[in-house]
Amino acid sequence: MGCSILFGLSGFSQQEDSLLIRKIADDILVNGKAYENLRVLTKTVGGRLSGSPQMVKAELWGLAAMKSAGADKAYLQECQVPHWIRGGKDEARFSVGAGGLQKSLDVLALGNSVGTGPKGISAQVLLIGSFEELERRKLEVKGKIIFYNYKFNPKFIETFRSYGDAVRYRAIGPSLAAKYGAVAVLVRTMSHSVDNNPHTGALDYIDTLPKIPAAAVGLWDADKLASSIQQNKVVRVFLRTNAQMLPDTTGHNVIGELTGSTYPDQFITIGGHLDSWDPAEGAHDDGTGCAHTIEVLRVLRAIGYQPKHSIRFVLFANEENGTRGGLKYAEQAKSNNEKHIFALESDAGGFTPRGFRLSLSSAQLEKIQPWIKLLKEYGVYEFNAGGGGTDIEPLNEQLGIPLGELEPDSQRYFDYHHARTDVFENVNKRELELGAINIAALIYLIDKYGL
Amino acid sequence: MGCSILFGLSGFSQQEDSLLIRKIADDILVNGKAYENLRVLTKTVGGRLSGSPQMVKAELWGLAAMKSAGADKAYLQECQVPHWIRGGKDEARFSVGAGGLQKSLDVLALGNSVGTGPKGISAQVLLIGSFEELERRKLEVKGKIIFYNYKFNPKFIETFRSYGDAVRYRAIGPSLAAKYGAVAVLVRTMSHSVDNNPHTGALDYIDTLPKIPAAAVGLWDADKLASSIQQNKVVRVFLRTNAQMLPDTTGHNVIGELTGSTYPDQFITIGGHLDSWDPAEGAHDDGTGCAHTIEVLRVLRAIGYQPKHSIRFVLFANEENGTRGGLKYAEQAKSNNEKHIFALESDAGGFTPRGFRLSLSSAQLEKIQPWIKLLKEYGVYEFNAGGGGTDIEPLNEQLGIPLGELEPDSQRYFDYHHARTDVFENVNKRELELGAINIAALIYLIDKYGL
Repeated sequence: MGCSILFGLSGFSQQEDSLLIRKIADDILVNGKAYENLRVLTKTVGGRLSGSPQMVKAELWGLAAMKSAGADKAYLQECQVPHWIRGGKDEARFSVGAGGLQKSLDVLALGNSVGTGPKGISAQVLLIGSFEELERRKLEVKGKIIFYNYKFNPKFIETFRSYGDAVRYRAIGPSLAAKYGAVAVLVRTMSHSVDNNPHTGALDYIDTLPKIPAAAVGLWDADKLASSIQQNKVVRVFLRTNAQMLPDTTGHNVIGELTGSTYPDQFITIGGHLDSWDPAEGAHDDGTGCAHTIEVLRVLRAIGYQPKHSIRFVLFANEENGTRGGLKYAEQAKSNNEKHIFALESDAGGFTPRGFRLSLSSAQLEKIQPWIKLLKEYGVYEFNAGGGGTDIEPLNEQLGIPLGELEPDSQRYFDYHHARTDVFENVNKRELELGAINIAALIYLIDKYGL
Repeated sequence: MGCSILFGLSGFSQQEDSLLIRKIADDILVNGKAYENLRVLTKTVGGRLSGSPQMVKAELWGLAAMKSAGADKAYLQECQVPHWIRGGKDEARFSVGAGGLQKSLDVLALGNSVGTGPKGISAQVLLIGSFEELERRKLEVKGKIIFYNYKFNPKFIETFRSYGDAVRYRAIGPSLAAKYGAVAVLVRTMSHSVDNNPHTGALDYIDTLPKIPAAAVGLWDADKLASSIQQNKVVRVFLRTNAQMLPDTTGHNVIGELTGSTYPDQFITIGGHLDSWDPAEGAHDDGTGCAHTIEVLRVLRAIGYQPKHSIRFVLFANEENGTRGGLKYAEQAKSNNEKHIFALESDAGGFTPRGFRLSLSSAQLEKIQPWIKLLKEYGVYEFNAGGGGTDIEPLNEQLGIPLGELEPDSQRYFDYHHARTDVFENVNKRELELGAINIAALIYLIDKYGL
């Protein structure tokens, strides 16, 4: 159907929709609580790994925030979560040649990794640029520390593409190195940042291979280490990490609900994840997604919008190192025979919004193109195919429903992602609010018109 | 003409253009000098008001940077500039009631303002919300300090609209208060920032009215002051500013040129302004515009692009408090009978780009719509009517040529604008680079196809 026909049919509604979305925007920009909610979460709870005492505190905060935002129901949904702990400060030093001066390296153990033991590991380093190089040089690997120095590609405009390209070295690099007898792994930090902060993140051990310690190295130090190795045959690294994977423990998804007026038993889900890495405050990853989620609930109540479908607002328990929250949510939805029509996750930071990614057919995307006219003034100018989010993907796998994700501008995300700099101060109030405006507007349109 | 026809005609070119723009992007993202140029300007020169010694240093830096970026010619164009100096630290305190405790206010004298003299001014404050209120209460003004507490409107999505709405209180507020006998003026800072830094900027005295001192107050302090006045009848402020307008002095536009191959005597101008307010480093205002300008020159050279028209790269001498650089540039262009076809200014910060504003007819805008397909992947998704820039407007007035300006995302601009926080650290390298990519691409398209 051509745009002119669609607009012809829906002229009056567009006017009404435009006014309602303006109401949403005005309320968020004038009375919004997203920024203050984020402040409380980041500054009074801080970093909150699944299984940590901070996560318990975060869940109680989330439950209270859902109630205070006006949820008809708010509750915790129990699940088992992995319980990885860093166990203390990570340390690394390198030395060039025999008796060379030791220089420190700024490192962070990778999430889910084993520790080195209290004595640390000392070994010669092998500089590896790619998995292809690892294969070629596999006979040199035994007894060494493998240093993957694969660079974050600056040519991708969307930085998530650079991440997708590089992250395999963090995820499976340790196991692939262990396969050939490596004793530990260092990984170049995945970031365009201009500082030296290492960025952690989960690795994914292959069960059949030995588990060896692994850590991320800051960019300046990665360059120094690489250049020392390129200039000298023998560079040794001492690495001490104290990480441990403890037995699974109990965690919770935090859920708020608005009950639908027409289809109370049909659900739309909006979520972010409450857990975060420990070195900082989990501000952009994913405090902002939690703040968006609660703000959409708050604003729909504040403007008196009565949704036709029930809307669930979910702070997921365990995105970073297990997806146990998302899996539990989908399992429960399936075992309760719930009907879900759409789920959206905000997990790409609290930056100025540009679009939504939606797992829809091209015919469906074409159908909702006119909505862009309503969103453009608030920053969203495109619907892209794709769409998902770690926590909501199980819902798609279990129930086959379409997924969506907010696409904020991606340039700054990997400056902060999983690093010490992911703090409240690096979130801009208005950018955060614009994200909430666009999500609330899209949810309103989906609730009203369907997909 | 419908899009399908245009694309039919220009199919091959679109492919060629797309590849050339990709080349521009890759070179800027991999070999770019914009960020390093900005670092040198902000960190080794710093704040650089017209007439200041820092501005002389900045001009020499600019000239060297133009040469090093590959200009065929690089030269200074002399002009007379105003020479306003702050003259020392600005001070303010307020007290509530007789003998009340004095509390400090964080203030910055407004640019072009007169000082209070070394003894300062002490007077009762009159809180004024709008010019309408000033008119209603004009009999109360005499002998008082007027405090304009007009708020930056959060409901505008584009923050430049909030600025346009509020800035009249800074520009003509002092003279309008002087008209009714005020002794000094305080203005609420024009910003959505979450901190208390005052934001300065030029005022514009009306010649026939007495010139009274004026200063901007940080947002937290503005709120404190307003609430004290609302709760109590008598609040007094002590203000000491040391500002002076000295006689005009010599300044320079810094100009680099690439000579056109086909139309060497037809010019395209790209510019930013080199001068900046003194409290910080003039990073987003407008070091980033200068860095964009030089980077476009550098990249066109680096990829071996030979422009058909001559392109002038201009760092203007005096945007902040006089426009003398822009006026001189246009005067010279006119008196030399130069033919100019287009001018673009980057003066809205080094943030992620969203569009260009162009002073073109709707027919012209329609004609270049297909270019959006080429730019969208780099962040620019719309051409909007309008377009200008303080420094290039005289060129339009003198020669009637179309103007353009880069439209970066505006959410953070007024957090830093004219405040102590406008420093290098608040510029993101990749956002800056994306601005340069889009400007270079647009200039390439205009050079090749005209407007």
